[in-house]
Parts: sequence; C-alpha cells; structure tokens
Amino acid sequence: MRVHEALAELELVDHHCHGVTRHDLDRPAFESLLTEGGVTPFDTPTGIAVRRHCAPVLDLPPHAPPEEYLERRAELGAEEVNRRFLHASRTHTFCVDTGHTPIPLTTPAELAEAARGTAYEVVRLESVAEKLKADGVEPGDWAEEFTRAVHDAVRAPGVVAVKSVAAYRTGFALDPTRPAPQEITRAARSWLGREGRLDDAVLVRHLLWTAVEAGVPLQLHTGFGDGDIRLHRADPSLLTDWLHAIPGDVPVLLLHCWPFQRQAAYLTSVFSRVYLDVGLTLHHVGPVRAAAVLAEALEITPFGKLLYSSDAYGVAEFYALGALAFRRGLGDLLQDRVDAGELSPPDAVRLARWAGAENARRIYRLRDRF
Amino acid sequence: MRVHEALAELELVDHHCHGVTRHDLDRPAFESLLTEGGVTPFDTPTGIAVRRHCAPVLDLPPHAPPEEYLERRAELGAEEVNRRFLHASRTHTFCVDTGHTPIPLTTPAELAEAARGTAYEVVRLESVAEKLKADGVEPGDWAEEFTRAVHDAVRAPGVVAVKSVAAYRTGFALDPTRPAPQEITRAARSWLGREGRLDDAVLVRHLLWTAVEAGVPLQLHTGFGDGDIRLHRADPSLLTDWLHAIPGDVPVLLLHCWPFQRQAAYLTSVFSRVYLDVGLTLHHVGPVRAAAVLAEALEITPFGKLLYSSDAYGVAEFYALGALAFRRGLGDLLQDRVDAGELSPPDAVRLARWAGAENARRIYRLRDRF
Amino acid sequence: MRVHEALAELELVDHHCHGVTRHDLDRPAFESLLTEGGVTPFDTPTGIAVRRHCAPVLDLPPHAPPEEYLERRAELGAEEVNRRFLHASRTHTFCVDTGHTPIPLTTPAELAEAARGTAYEVVRLESVAEKLKADGVEPGDWAEEFTRAVHDAVRAPGVVAVKSVAAYRTGFALDPTRPAPQEITRAARSWLGREGRLDDAVLVRHLLWTAVEAGVPLQLHTGFGDGDIRLHRADPSLLTDWLHAIPGDVPVLLLHCWPFQRQAAYLTSVFSRVYLDVGLTLHHVGPVRAAAVLAEALEITPFGKLLYSSDAYGVAEFYALGALAFRRGLGDLLQDRVDAGELSPPDAVRLARWAGAENARRIYRLRDRF
Repeated sequence: MRVHEALAELELVDHHCHGVTRHDLDRPAFESLLTEGGVTPFDTPTGIAVRRHCAPVLDLPPHAPPEEYLERRAELGAEEVNRRFLHASRTHTFCVDTGHTPIPLTTPAELAEAARGTAYEVVRLESVAEKLKADGVEPGDWAEEFTRAVHDAVRAPGVVAVKSVAAYRTGFALDPTRPAPQEITRAARSWLGREGRLDDAVLVRHLLWTAVEAGVPLQLHTGFGDGDIRLHRADPSLLTDWLHAIPGDVPVLLLHCWPFQRQAAYLTSVFSRVYLDVGLTLHHVGPVRAAAVLAEALEITPFGKLLYSSDAYGVAEFYALGALAFRRGLGDLLQDRVDAGELSPPDAVRLARWAGAENARRIYRLRDRF
Repeated sequence: MRVHEALAELELVDHHCHGVTRHDLDRPAFESLLTEGGVTPFDTPTGIAVRRHCAPVLDLPPHAPPEEYLERRAELGAEEVNRRFLHASRTHTFCVDTGHTPIPLTTPAELAEAARGTAYEVVRLESVAEKLKADGVEPGDWAEEFTRAVHDAVRAPGVVAVKSVAAYRTGFALDPTRPAPQEITRAARSWLGREGRLDDAVLVRHLLWTAVEAGVPLQLHTGFGDGDIRLHRADPSLLTDWLHAIPGDVPVLLLHCWPFQRQAAYLTSVFSRVYLDVGLTLHHVGPVRAAAVLAEALEITPFGKLLYSSDAYGVAEFYALGALAFRRGLGDLLQDRVDAGELSPPDAVRLARWAGAENARRIYRLRDRF
Repeated sequence: MRVHEALAELELVDHHCHGVTRHDLDRPAFESLLTEGGVTPFDTPTGIAVRRHCAPVLDLPPHAPPEEYLERRAELGAEEVNRRFLHASRTHTFCVDTGHTPIPLTTPAELAEAARGTAYEVVRLESVAEKLKADGVEPGDWAEEFTRAVHDAVRAPGVVAVKSVAAYRTGFALDPTRPAPQEITRAARSWLGREGRLDDAVLVRHLLWTAVEAGVPLQLHTGFGDGDIRLHRADPSLLTDWLHAIPGDVPVLLLHCWPFQRQAAYLTSVFSRVYLDVGLTLHHVGPVRAAAVLAEALEITPFGKLLYSSDAYGVAEFYALGALAFRRGLGDLLQDRVDAGELSPPDAVRLARWAGAENARRIYRLRDRF
C-alpha cells in the first residue's frame, strides 16, 4: 500500500488540541481566530489554505472569496460547520488542553461527540496554579498545595497529560535546579500578593519539577505562538540542563517547535523521554510547506518520537487543515523516499502509522483506557 | 497571466538600497565590493551568479571567466555598466540609504537618472548622531538636539524613512525601555568625550525610541551583514519586548533577516506594524537559493508584509541580480503553488505585485509623493 | 564530465574522523554506536540509511531487517566489515582525532592500512590538558607547561591539526579575551585540585588562545553532538568576537555545524581563516537530506571553504555512509545547477573536487607531507 493511502485510511490521534467555539462568527471574530496576531488574515498562508481546502468542505469551489466563505459558513451554522471539519479531519482521538478559554469552547465530551470520536483531557498547569491562587492559599503552603492540586487533577477521569506554557511566562532560560522550599514560599508570597498570571520564575520552576513527578506525560509549548511569546526564549534546547536534571522517565512532549524543529529533534535524539510534534505550524504554514518543516524536524528525529497534533483552537477549520497538512506532508516525504529507493514500502507505512497514531497511543497509554 | 510574466512586467520598488560607485574598478576594488568579507570572491554563490547572469548584460557569454568579465567591464566604463544593470533590474523606484559612504557613491538623484526612475532617501540615524557629535553638542542637550536633528532630517524633500544599524553597534539584546533623561546625558557625556562610532547602548536605545516617533517608517538592519555584525545579537526576535513597548504605529521594516527569516516572519505575523524583506541575501545566495529563502520567510508571513529590496551597494550588478533573484524566486514559489492547485492564478499575480511594489508604495506613501 | 562521475572517481580526504572498533559487536553495542543518544536506533534516519546502503556492502538486499544485518555483520567479522566499508567510502586520506577513546579504537596507522590509504593525526587539546593534569603540574606552571605540551604534540610525526571540544565543556559564549597569567594560575589551582574533565572557562579560553598559536589548523566541534552538548551554546556565531581578537592566520575549521550551518557559513564568508564542514550530520540525516543541509551551508559559503568529513566513530558504516551522503548531496546540488544553466560544467567539477579533497589538501598542507 502506498503511504498516502495508508495515511488517508488512518484515524489520527491528535495529541494536542483545544476546543472549538459553538457560536456563529462574524468576520472580525472569525479573522481574529484565523491568525495568531490578526493582520490581513485572509492573505496569509493560513487564509489561502482555508480558501483552498476548507471552502470545498462547505460546498464552495476552491479559492472562494472570503466574503462567500463567511456567508456560506454563517448559512450552515456553527454546529454543522464544526461537524463537517471534524469529520473531514478523520481524527478519532483528541487530547484536549482545557486550560485556555478566553472565549467559551466545546468541552472534550462535546468535541468527541461532534467528531464521533474519543476525547481525553490535558490539564494546563498554569491554570491549576491560578485557580489555587484564586481559591486562596498561604504562601507557606504553596508548594504542598500546588503539588496536591496537580496530583488531584491528573487523577480525574479522562486526564492523560499535563501541559505547561512556561515558554510564554518566563521562557526556558531558567535555572534548571529544583527550587528550595524557602525560595518557593518567598516567591509565592510575592506572587499571591499581586495581580497577574503565573510568571514568577521560581514558581514556574517548581511547576515544571512538580509536573514530571505527577506520573503523566508533560506537554510543553515551545517555539511559535501568539504575540505573547518571546521566540528566542522559547527555543527548546534551552531546556537541556533541566532535562538532564529531572528524575523519572515520564515523557516530555515538545509541542509545535517551529522554527526550532531541529533543536527539538536534537533533544528527541539524545533523551529517550523526549518527543516532538510540529502542530500549530501545520495549519499556519499550510500543506505547501508542511513537508519542508517535517523534513527538517525529521532529519535526525527517531520515527518513534514524532507525533501528530493540530493545535486547533476556536475554529474547526484547523482540525481539517492540520490533518490535511500532516497527511500530505508526511505522505509526500515518505513516498518520495520510497520512490527513490531510500525506504522500503512496508517501513514507510509502518512509520506513517506510528507518527499519525501509534506513538501517541503508546505514550499516553490510550489503549489501557478502553 | 502567469506569475513570472506579471513579475517580469512589474516595475519593482526597491525599498532599501545604496548608491553605486561612479568610477571604473580594478580587480581588487571590484572583488572587495563583490562580497561582504572578501575571500575568493568569484568562487562564491554571488561570484558564480555574476558570471552567469551579469556577463550577458555586458555582451559576454554566460559563465565568462573573471578576467574577461573585468576586462569587458572596464572597456564599457562605469557609467555604461551602471546604466545597463539598472536598466536590466527593471526597478523604477529606489529608497536609498545615504548614510554609509566609505567610498564615494551616486546620490539618489544620480541613481534615479541612471535608472530613468525615481529615488527617495532613507536617513541613517547613526550618521545623524555622528554628525551632531562632530558639529559639537553639550551632553545635557543631546536628547533634545538629536531628536530635533532627526525631525529636521525627515522633513527634507524626498526623505521617506529612517534606518538604524543598531544590529551592528550593540545588537538587539537591549533593555527595551526608553532611557531616562539623566541616563542619556550621562551616556552622551561619555560618548562625546571619546572617539568612535555610536555604540553606546543607552544612546542606541534613545535613537530607536526617537526613530519610532519621527513619523516615518523605520528600517532596521537585521541578520547577515559584513564582518562587523555579531549574528547572534542581530536576531530580530530579540526586539520583541521593544516592539511591545513602543508607541504609535509607524511601520518597522526588518531588512535582510537571513538566517533569521523565520523569526522575522513571526514578528510580521503578530505585530501589525512589522514588515520584512530578504534583500542582501538575494544577491548573496543567488537565484539558485532565492526561492528556498523566500519560502522560509513566507511560511507564516502575511503577503501584505513582504517587500523587495536589493540592498545593492557599490556595484550595479547587485541591482540586476537582486531583482532577478526576487522575480525568479517569488515567481517560482507562487507559480508552483498555482500549478499544484494551492493558489488561484489571480491571487498569485496580486500577491506578486504586492510584494514587488504595492506594499512598499503603501507603507512609504509613495503615491502621495507624485 | 558530469559532477556525480567526478565525485565517484575522486578519492576523498576525510578531514575529521575517529577510529573504528576492531571487535565484533552484539546488538546493544552496535546500536549504542549507531546513534548519539541510543533510542530506537534502527528507526532513525541513520538506521534506515544503514539498512538501505550498508546492507548491500555486506551482500544483503537493501532494507534488510536489523536482525539479518547484525547476523551477517557478525558472520563476516569486524576486520572484514571494516575493510569493506572503508573500501566502499573511496576515501584515501584520513585526519584522525585520537583523543576520544572510551572504547578501544583503531590507531591512525591501523585505519590507514585497512583503507589502503594515508592517515594523519589530529591532537585533541582537552586530552593534552587532562594528561598533563594526570602527570602532575603546579598551578603556577600550567600556562607554560600546557603551551609546551601542545607545541610538542603538534611536532609529532603525522600530526596535522589540533582540535577542541570547548563546545561541550563551556560552550562558546566565552569572554573572547586572552586570560591573564594570574587568572590562569588561579583557575589551574582550582581545577587541578578537583576531579573532572577540563571544563573551567578560563582554562578553556587559554586552550583556545594557545591553539591558534600552535601553528597548525584548529578544528572546533560546533553544533550537534551527543547528549553532553548544549546546542544553544554551540552556535559558532558566538565565536565572532574571539575570531576578531585572535592573532595570526592559522585556519579555524568549524566541524559539523548543524543546525547552525548558516551561522557557520556567515563566518566563512567574512573571515578568511574560517572553514566549515557538515560532517557528522551527513550520516545522521542520511543521503535523503544531505543535499538540503549542504544547500543551506552553501548559500553564502565560498566554495574554497567547504570540506568533507565523515566524523565516523566506532562503526565503519559511517565512513561509507558519510562519503555516500556527501557525494550524492553535493553531486545533486551542483548537477542541478548545471542542468538549470546556473553553473558551468567545468566549474561544477572543479568545485566538487575542491570540496571533496583539494581544500583539505591545501589547508592541512598534505601535499608537503609526501
């Protein structure tokens, strides 16, 4: 069987995504969800890919103008639109980060229903910390209470992983050592006494150490993100000392990575616990560049270390577009190698299935859950 | 119309270039202008591209040997050589950085005449500062006098932008905040009391803050340059905090960017005021790699954010080579997407025109000037 | 002659490699040598390339399963296997780093004999320092004794270069200045009084300054390596200030470089003494990506500045695989340019020979040695 067919048949495991809005969207609302920053959103690679590949899912011709696209989208209504794109993605399993909801989004259960699939939950650790702060806690109790809250959170049904957005808050150029109790108390006293998100370096370090001891895989946002990111501090290679220092062997999954996919690949090649995806990037760079980005990521990454994620957020188009870019990009990359005699056809199909589903099933122990 | 034809017909706007020498050049002089550093200059990608693409403009066969090339160049004389390459570039509009003239170069007016086009001026802010120092100023008056000098400079006829070479002087890992008046005075006292170019971090910060308040677009050299650059400090993502801090909305244009074209692209995708080009790179990497570099730059850059520049300096070959690499590279990239059904032909032509001319016309308000 | 033929005929100069084990290897031992880190080693790009390209050298079909490969390898025995792969590499000259032998490896003479070629020695400076420490030296004598030891080492017959692994020990974000004598004594006192490898920043700086005054080329590991590297500190552009500061003109050779091949290329383009290779990377990324990595490295690198190395270590497969990836990658890159009319056929053949052998012969003065 050829690689593209194998990938077309394969029901993907999307190991990192978010919910989708249940509401109809006007043009400004749709455009603000279409790009990370919000400038001329339809004349970006994403916008062009939406018009090319998503328009036909809504019964429009490829390259339909933005106005027609939005009109047809409104006509069908959010529920039908979401259903169509989720169906088009041929994704069966979703690991949903539920911790970032400036707008109301579907729950994992709602997402699963719309997709006729299965959804698991990924607990965002910064949200756990911020909830604990809102609930009230003494600085001297922070270390223990936060640890307890994380352990409780990961024991909830359906939770398969934790995630940190430390990349956004402090970046990765952190002291790699575990902070001492008195440091944590001092930092907690300062942070609990002021407004604002978790951005204290000591508490973020404590969060990361707590994370790898919680017993479930840890997802880390790395590289590209919205305007809040400082790209040079989100280079995953800055985590090397920390990766050497941490105990145990729970998987650490580097999300997105672009433009540091080669740095991330290095980490997957030398740390048995480290994995990567190039999600988010996929629907931003679109099918036209997915193979190129994957090719860089895969220059040295062991094939057991690559996962698929859409990082879809807000609009259902991204489930379809991420899946398309992944299938097309990985399919082209592997089939070209088969055609050049560099890879055997059965190996190519096996590696495609690993990346699209099997690696995630193994890492998150999804089989044990059925 | 196919993309290559549209780009061939389009008269480019070169939003960042320098003048060209009026004098005939012997081999060492020509070679020293051919590369940033000056080692085996004809056996570089640039040198190979000059022999391939510039030789025919001088009536020689492609791949003519260096000796023949230089002999023919001398025979025709600088004026005719300059005229031919400027004509071959099919560039109509030039924004000329007039602040770097270790050798005498054409003025914008002379360049415009040779090209039968129009030339505007870009004021280099470090040159304004260094002239002010040479003219004599009290440390306590520095902040005010420099600001006044910049405001005067941008009001001169034909000036469309300011430019900073902070990348060369301090790099971008600067405190992003506006320096306090007493800091500026102290720094001015130190710098005015010694020899040397503007390389004081406080005064460079003041220069950058002054720049975005001068009311015209700000061009910033980023990435690759001559031997004076420290590449790791010229990564434009180091500017993120500063871009969040500055007021107003005058455009900030990231010049050249290589090898940080993806980092620059990130900034264009999240800051509505940020734009980029991959000039300079184009004639260094040559037509054979222009599409690859552009493809990386365009992975996430909105198409309204890409500009063309040659960054030509000293020898007129670079106007022709930059334009050729841009037209070929962007043309291949867009036409390939059209051929793959990923982009509609009218969109492709529209985006090509934006990048080659329209974006620059809009950003620098060039139409208002006719 | 076409480029691939010229490269096939050319006997390569491998300017940086290590010895190979003389012993038969069981599966864990083979796998641990196959990758830098040791995870699922046969399902990496290297492992796939070994099965594809090395299996036929052992009379197996391409893509032979790992078990068959290892069985056949054991059947033939280490000596025959080494002989076959060295012969398949068509490498005549080897510059062998003899300073890293956690397992016993062939000497340069043994390697030369197995390859029916010539081997020279590269002295690893950290090993010289660590031997001096083991032999016993007073802190106050360190500077002088280490300098003497290096000068003695480079005068030994067959020594053509020195090498530093400063990238592993401290990284390149070092004070670029030469350390003062009292600093060196103080640092030596501290380091000589404790266990451990040479990782003191002052002594590493002294080592680098001593190196460029020893009168032979200096090889520097940069970029990708095993789990000990901190990739973000192994970016060669961090060396820029040091390259400006050092005296003399002995060549400085940047080894490997990935993923910083563009940063390394910048340095080769502005410093006449700086050269690069993309060895190590070649057998890790395999023939399928060698052209892509070389294309990035060669965007601005003068063709007189590119060298070939295998960085083979431990298993002889890497001599064959590195040579194959280099010949295929550089051949494809140059032939594509010839086919596109961008490069003349004689120039392409000349540049291929430079990179595969001539540049190294010139830089290491190998001709003077016969």
